[in-house]
Amino acid sequence: MNYLNTKEQVFLQIISKTLNKNSYLGDDCAFLKKEKLAITQDTLVENVHFDLSFITPFELGYKACIVNVSDILVSGAKPKYITVSLSGNLEEKFVEEFYKGINKACKDFKIEVIGGDLTKGEKITISICAIGSAENRKISSRKNAKENYIVATKGFFGSSAYYLETKDENFKEAHIKPTIFPKLLENVAKKTKKPYVAMDSSDGLIDCLMNISKQSNIGFEIEYNKIPKKIKNKDLVLYGGEDFCPVIVLHKNDFKKIKGLKAIGKTTKKMGIFIDGEDYSDKKWRGFEHFE
Amino acid sequence: MNYLNTKEQVFLQIISKTLNKNSYLGDDCAFLKKEKLAITQDTLVENVHFDLSFITPFELGYKACIVNVSDILVSGAKPKYITVSLSGNLEEKFVEEFYKGINKACKDFKIEVIGGDLTKGEKITISICAIGSAENRKISSRKNAKENYIVATKGFFGSSAYYLETKDENFKEAHIKPTIFPKLLENVAKKTKKPYVAMDSSDGLIDCLMNISKQSNIGFEIEYNKIPKKIKNKDLVLYGGEDFCPVIVLHKNDFKKIKGLKAIGKTTKKMGIFIDGEDYSDKKWRGFEHFE
Repeated sequence: MNYLNTKEQVFLQIISKTLNKNSYLGDDCAFLKKEKLAITQDTLVENVHFDLSFITPFELGYKACIVNVSDILVSGAKPKYITVSLSGNLEEKFVEEFYKGINKACKDFKIEVIGGDLTKGEKITISICAIGSAENRKISSRKNAKENYIVATKGFFGSSAYYLETKDENFKEAHIKPTIFPKLLENVAKKTKKPYVAMDSSDGLIDCLMNISKQSNIGFEIEYNKIPKKIKNKDLVLYGGEDFCPVIVLHKNDFKKIKGLKAIGKTTKKMGIFIDGEDYSDKKWRGFEHFE
Repeated sequence: MNYLNTKEQVFLQIISKTLNKNSYLGDDCAFLKKEKLAITQDTLVENVHFDLSFITPFELGYKACIVNVSDILVSGAKPKYITVSLSGNLEEKFVEEFYKGINKACKDFKIEVIGGDLTKGEKITISICAIGSAENRKISSRKNAKENYIVATKGFFGSSAYYLETKDENFKEAHIKPTIFPKLLENVAKKTKKPYVAMDSSDGLIDCLMNISKQSNIGFEIEYNKIPKKIKNKDLVLYGGEDFCPVIVLHKNDFKKIKGLKAIGKTTKKMGIFIDGEDYSDKKWRGFEHFE
């Protein structure tokens, strides 16, 4: 199975066709031009996206916010509001701790809970909708990459997946409370002159590059040794998800203006995802398969 | 157990306290004043809110939209956008039919799908976030009811619950594809001069009245024979959910201006939910218990 045959990609094609839209879910956020708003929704399901034996309700509330705030930030917008839907066989203590985590994230990221709902369900399911303001900010699109753009990033790839695989306590925080970069992404949205792409590596680095390649119709040349990482397992560095590292593809003049970004490669006219010369776009898909 | 001791109400009190907010989920929609937007999110869980042996995936997609569009309409706003999160052990045919239902609702209610996500899960879970424009419309609040206001409505109470109880085919549509009233609610939002309350009877008529009573600090006198209904079971008429009838509490001068509304009672200074003189506010709670 290659990337385009993953069930998620097949479902997205069905949805695009049914809604008669060119690229449904083309970006992490929807952007409403007139209203100058970026909107995203992400759902976390117990035993699919999290395991309550490794994350506390407080941490889960906090992380559910991170996942959505990250999508708003990489879109270029300023996170402002969230609605929170929580389902499950809920207990008072869980609800309280979960919302304490939400409340802490609200303070840390200067966002506000404006609504949501509570429903019964078998497994804990969290669906958060986040809304950001695009005022005075340049919004990213996965269609924006051009030949000879710089691929830049921040953070460490593979750490979150490494924790899940090894349960090495040194990597726990990378999984439970991944670092996101509000100030850096604000700079990208405010200082860039040319259209750019930013997305987070929530589904892994290769997934990011495949998405951008497909939508911008360009290829990539990446130097593996330049990818920031703290682990040696190459599969986890390239395919591991949930690090939420920003992956930014931008003009070299814009790259120079943004402090704190690390270049890991460039875009090419030639299609393919070349890592040290080896094409990963044709390889059997080893990333997170949402529906297997 | 009375209404305020239901698990949902207890959870909402915990959340309000944790977020340090006066009334979390006080209204069906959050209203963003500066952005002039109304936002709502509702989640439907398989075997809690729907049963796939009685509803097709197409009907489910359509109804999931109705639930959220109704919340936007009663808030007074004009429904514009939705994001759709779909979880479950999904099959291609289900995704296609579900989205065909969504697409039909988009056409019927003039809304647009702008994003969402797809994730694996055990039970089908649908979380939709809907966004409406409040431009040139007066927005409802459950705090707005005053003494001697008219309680008015449209549609038939108890029909949806009656279908679930009897599986009488004559009532199937009331449950599967409940009628909502975009034009009527647009008129309320545009023609009323005084602050008003509108909410839908998604959790039943008594639940509506309890909510408004608590937040506006007024009571109700309702005449049972004036409540529009097609069934004889009084419990289902008063407590049955999922009819999505608008329950509107408004000044009598405003009531006269809106065609198509039916008055069923009035608000009183005296607290309590009196139906033909009998107080329902102290009774053992017989409505939908979200967490039992």
